[in-house]
Formats: sequence, C-alpha cells, structure tokens
Amino acid sequence: MQFFKVKTVEETFALIDEKIEKIKSVENRAIEDAMGYILAEDVTARENVPGFDRSTVDGYAVRAEDTYGSSESMPGFLTVTGEVRMGEAASIPVGFGEAVYVPTGGMLPAGSDSVMMIEHCEEIAGLLNTYRQVAPGENVIREGEDIRIGELVLAEGTRLRPQEVGALASLGITHVNVYRKLKAGYLSSGDEIVPFETQDLAIGQIRDINYFTIAGLANDWGVDVVYGGIVPDDYEEFQRRAKELFDEVDCLILSGGSSVGAKDYTTDVIQSLGGPGVFVHGISVKPGKPTILAMADGKPVIGLPGHPASAMIIFRLFGERVLKRLKGETLRPKADRIFARITKNIPSAPGRSDYIRVSLFEKEGEWWAEPIIGKSGLITTLVKSDGIVEIVSEKEGIAQGEYVPVIATR
Amino acid sequence: MQFFKVKTVEETFALIDEKIEKIKSVENRAIEDAMGYILAEDVTARENVPGFDRSTVDGYAVRAEDTYGSSESMPGFLTVTGEVRMGEAASIPVGFGEAVYVPTGGMLPAGSDSVMMIEHCEEIAGLLNTYRQVAPGENVIREGEDIRIGELVLAEGTRLRPQEVGALASLGITHVNVYRKLKAGYLSSGDEIVPFETQDLAIGQIRDINYFTIAGLANDWGVDVVYGGIVPDDYEEFQRRAKELFDEVDCLILSGGSSVGAKDYTTDVIQSLGGPGVFVHGISVKPGKPTILAMADGKPVIGLPGHPASAMIIFRLFGERVLKRLKGETLRPKADRIFARITKNIPSAPGRSDYIRVSLFEKEGEWWAEPIIGKSGLITTLVKSDGIVEIVSEKEGIAQGEYVPVIATR
Repeated sequence: MQFFKVKTVEETFALIDEKIEKIKSVENRAIEDAMGYILAEDVTARENVPGFDRSTVDGYAVRAEDTYGSSESMPGFLTVTGEVRMGEAASIPVGFGEAVYVPTGGMLPAGSDSVMMIEHCEEIAGLLNTYRQVAPGENVIREGEDIRIGELVLAEGTRLRPQEVGALASLGITHVNVYRKLKAGYLSSGDEIVPFETQDLAIGQIRDINYFTIAGLANDWGVDVVYGGIVPDDYEEFQRRAKELFDEVDCLILSGGSSVGAKDYTTDVIQSLGGPGVFVHGISVKPGKPTILAMADGKPVIGLPGHPASAMIIFRLFGERVLKRLKGETLRPKADRIFARITKNIPSAPGRSDYIRVSLFEKEGEWWAEPIIGKSGLITTLVKSDGIVEIVSEKEGIAQGEYVPVIATR
Repeated sequence: MQFFKVKTVEETFALIDEKIEKIKSVENRAIEDAMGYILAEDVTARENVPGFDRSTVDGYAVRAEDTYGSSESMPGFLTVTGEVRMGEAASIPVGFGEAVYVPTGGMLPAGSDSVMMIEHCEEIAGLLNTYRQVAPGENVIREGEDIRIGELVLAEGTRLRPQEVGALASLGITHVNVYRKLKAGYLSSGDEIVPFETQDLAIGQIRDINYFTIAGLANDWGVDVVYGGIVPDDYEEFQRRAKELFDEVDCLILSGGSSVGAKDYTTDVIQSLGGPGVFVHGISVKPGKPTILAMADGKPVIGLPGHPASAMIIFRLFGERVLKRLKGETLRPKADRIFARITKNIPSAPGRSDYIRVSLFEKEGEWWAEPIIGKSGLITTLVKSDGIVEIVSEKEGIAQGEYVPVIATR
C-alpha cells in the first residue's frame, strides 16, 4: 500500500481546492425553483431598477430650493397642484413654488427633485406649510440607483439566497442557468452495523445512524443523498456495492472502515474505483484523523470515520468544502463562525487541529463557549452542542477567557 | 380607527410570545422524513446506548492495573489470548496478565476495563509489549454512557437537526410525533405592483419581488408558502382575496400597504378577518416602522412594509419569531449572531432600534462589519450583505471599532 503522510487542515483544504472541479452539467430553471442553486452564468441587467425616480416616503414632491429656510418657527408655503397615483405615470409637473402629493413608491413628477415627508408639513386648503427644508435627492431613489442597465448583478458561482432570487425577479428574469443538483451516494461498512430500524440488537451490534446525520447535512447544503445500505467487512462485496453506487452518483461517501484496523478495505475499494485516487489519507485533527479523500474518474470520494460525532465534524469541515467545490459555488468568507470566549482551559497538541463541541450562552454582549465533555462516539454530545470550537494546529491549547472561532451547528 | 402606540423591539417580542400559541395539529412521521420538524412529544430512551461496553480505538482490551508502570524504556508484557470480531459478542474473558485484540467499536471482553491503543504497544509472537500505562475506563465507552434507559433524550419543542435524527436512529426509533408543517399565505397589495414576469413595465410599475425573498426565508424555516397574487388598492377586493387565502392557511403575510398613506386598507382588512385583531401597529425600528402584527381567529397575520429590504429585515426579525412560536419550536439562544467590530461610526436615534446591512471580513482573528450604504428599497444592498447589525434602542449610535451583534444572512 502507498504511504500517505498525515495532512494538516490547511493542506487538506488546499488539496480539495486543487483536486476538485465543478460539475459541467448545467440546467435552466425557473427562478421560483432555483433557490439554493448555484448560478452557472453571469447575470447582467437588461433594464434600470427602479425604472423611474421614486419616492421612498409618503409626502410631497418639491423643488428642494423652494424649501430652503423652512423651519417649525418659520414655515414655508407651497401650492399643492395635484397628486401622483401609485402605478401611474406622474402627469403634473412641479413648477416653482409648487408641490404634488406622492405616496411611498410613487413616481416623482417632472421638475421635482426631492420629497418632503408628510410628517414635516401640513396641507391646509391647497396650501402646503413646510416645517423643514429638504436637500436635492432627499427621500428619492433615482432611476437605475438599485441596478443599472448592463451592470453585472450576479456572478457565476453565486449561491441563490432569497435576496438573489429577489434581485432576479426585480429585473423580470424568469429563468436562469444553474448547475444541476448534486447526487451523493452513502454507504456504511462494518460487520457490526445493522439497519437503524432493527428493534432487538444482538450483542456487539450498532445501528447505522451516520446516514441520518450525513444525509441531513448534505440536504441542508442542497445535495440529494442515495442510501446504498450497509456492507459487511468483505472486500469483494464492498467493492461491488461501492462501484454500483459510485456509477450512479456525483460523489461517494463511505462511513466506517477508515481506521487502520485489520479489516480496513476502504482504501483498496476507493483505489479500485478509478484514478488518480486517494490524495488525503489521515488529517491531523481530533477527532477524525482517519479521514480519506480521493478523486476517482472525476468524482470525489469521502471516507469518513465511523464514530457518529467524528463523522459529523469531519463532514462539516471537509465534506462541505468538497461538495461546494463540486457544486460550483464560489467560496465566501465563512460568516458561520461566531467568535466566543472559552469558559475553561483546553490543552491541545501543537501540529494538530482540535475540534471541541461546545454549548453557547450570551453574557454581557459576548458569546461564551462551554466545552461539552464526551467521547467522540457520543451522539448526545452533538445533540447538546450549539457549535464546534476550532483550536488551530499552531496553538498549544487555549486559555480561559480567550476568543475562539466557533462553527455554529444550530 | 383604534390608536396604536409604536412598540419597541423588546415589547414586540414579548407580545409575540404572549399572543401566539403553537398549532395543535400533530402528525406521526418516519424519522427520515422528519428533519427540520418540531417534536410534539418528549422522547425517552427504551434501551442503553451503547448497549455494551465498546472500545473507542483499535487496540488491546486489558486490565488497567496490569499496565501500571509500563513505559517506552520499561515495557510491560501481556499474553495475547485472542481477538474480538466486530459485530460479535466478546467470548474470551481477559484474565490477569492477558490481553485481547479489539477493533474500534468492538465489544469489551469480560474482565477487561480499558483498551491500550495499538500505537502504544507491539504484539510479537503472542506477547504484547506495552509502552504506556492506561487508566481504568481509558478508550472505552461504557454501556449507557451515551444514553441511559428512561432518560429524556429529546424534549417536546426540539427542532430535529441531523444530530437529533441520528440520536433517534441510535435508539431504533423509526417514527415520532411532530407538529404539522405550517402553510403560510402571501398576498401583495398595491396598484403599482405587477407580476414579476411582466417584461415591459409601464411607467410607475414595480415587479412583485417580495414574494421571492419572503417565501425563500419561510422555506428555510420549514414553512410552505401559498402565493395569493397581487391585489389592487381597493378595499372590497383586498378583503375578499385576503379572506379567501386566510381560510386555507395557518398564517397570513401581507406585503405593502402598511405605511400610513391614504390608500392603506391593510389594517381594516386585517381587523375584518377575526378577533382579537391587531396587537402591534408600528415598531420603533429603522427600517420597517410601519409593521403590523395581529391574531385573527387563532391565526397570526403579518403586515410587512413594501420596500424589499425593509420587508426582508422585518420578516427576519419578527416573522421568524412568529412562525417559530406557531410551529411549537422552543426558542434557544440565537447562535446566528456573530459579534463583529464596526468599521465606522454609525449615528442612531435613542428609543429606536436600527438595522444596518453590512458585509463581513475577517482580520486578525476577528470579524469586522463594513456598513453598506443604500436606501431601504435597494435589493442590491441585500445581495451585497453578509448580515445585519443591530443597534439596540438604548444606544445613540455605535463608535468605530465597537463590538456589535450581527445577524448573519449567508
């Protein structure tokens, strides 16, 4: 067997970025069904948004200079010459000394350059008493101020959140090209693993629960998961079932069997699926060291540790990156990391990144992270946790009160 | 019309908690289809997890006392008497001076109390050289250490994340009682609003984009949204269409028409739907002051401002709380708030909570929040934003470098 040097977290991320390419498959979707998908094209504006100067308040369209000097004690006076109706063009221009009522969102009449809020004036028998002055452009959104014709609105690689879909709708764009939804395959291995619905466990047996945690996370990231079932510790059957599943998915996830035990066929099975094969075998993290990452025939393969908490943490850290690269998503700064203060000293070996489950609480405007003590097999430590503290590999632990980045899991 | 005093953010939250009760409707779901749902029952354990003492490493099951004094320079010696196979009961007990090989997850043999990792010993011709000592319980998960029979595993009101579903699977629980998925109705109002797919806008017209941002957020929170279309500024038609939609949903969301303009029929329409009616009419926030919250015949009604960014911020702040209360979800500390430092001084009126869109970047292990300048109508300010900074009502603005809570929107 090929010898693999254990990689650091940073080396692993760099290798993921280097080895994994986005899928080529693009489809055209209606925007109402495109939420969460990744744009496969640049989108430029075909029109200005808004398409005309609009008021941002209920008030009176005026010429700003006509209001100069107006105050509570020395009101100015303007003649109200009409009203703009919502959804209709403003037909009455505003001349010197004139004002036209305009509702929020209404079109600004020709001649006016600003809107005085109704709270700052009073209409009495066709005469507007102005108690304030306004500046040119005040309470107005100019034509094209939101989006200008020809402007790049959304770049290829953008994940479509609600606001991005809203931006597309505001331009009258009904369909966009996006990368096809990914399909990942999941296969559990191990003689001790039995289907989760097994009611009476024989001694030594464990229910297959990683499927739920891993598929749950993948679904959150917009990836469908095909459950391939459980294979025993038998190379021939493992290889056959893995190959079968591999052929119908974009990415294969294997759970269990990645530790260095005697029955570890995972690496051999992965190498059999195609080249170039394994590029990470072991990461200097705790928990989750025996993680495997590979590329086989253009598809990523992820070998997760069998312990539920380890599997979940590793999948959250590296599986998400693998899937995002594959989806074609442009990575943005991870705003899912909260900075919190740790409630106790935590030792850590330098050269290794440690991931500590924590519960979070707020005190005096700051987040505090309370470590949850538990062995990596314990699913309850994940149920109790609000996040995972990362102790980066350069550090020899963290001291009470220190600020640490927390990956939120709620 | 009844007179309503503008409420603070805190008063609004308290009123939401007081007025809105969880839906009564419960359904039994398979756990694989229950992700994101809210538990409608307490779940207690019917068995211990794990069901037997397990090893957490690949190694040798030993009696800890047999290893005392072992070190690199002074190894101890034990006789290897056999091997535990995964998924099978450990049949060979461990006597004094003996060791039995056990893989990660394997069952601990009778007589042993700890496991020595293979990295810390060496088997040579049936004899185990031990280079370290282990403590009783080391590298072992005890029967019931994760979950004990009769223990409350998940409380009513818990949202089922991947780890909670994993915990249910680990207990062999295949179905749970959860609150039914909510169905919210969405209706836009305003003479100027036209369907988003309208290609050539007449002057003064605006495409209906709030549906996409609001429905997108609601979908993220596990709520289905029924689109009720667009109604003109006409009380009779507005009332009829609102009532029709209201009758088939659990919660009604109205967009636009909540400012104090002459054509504002929203309050009257809401009051016509049933008692006790409006309980919040105006919140001292910027943007989004003209927000309406009501309970009509046991169903919440939310009146959102028409401006896209205002609508989205208000829905994120108050709509989420309304829907979570209605879903039956127990509110937990909001770990979706990042603490960041602001890059510039921001003034704010005391007595009003301000919400400023920001982009986030990391510098020297801290998040910094850069305000995005833009009028509240601008959808692009939301597209560019990573989060929303809250300036609480007691504060008269924030100073450059100050720590502020940011609601992440990525």
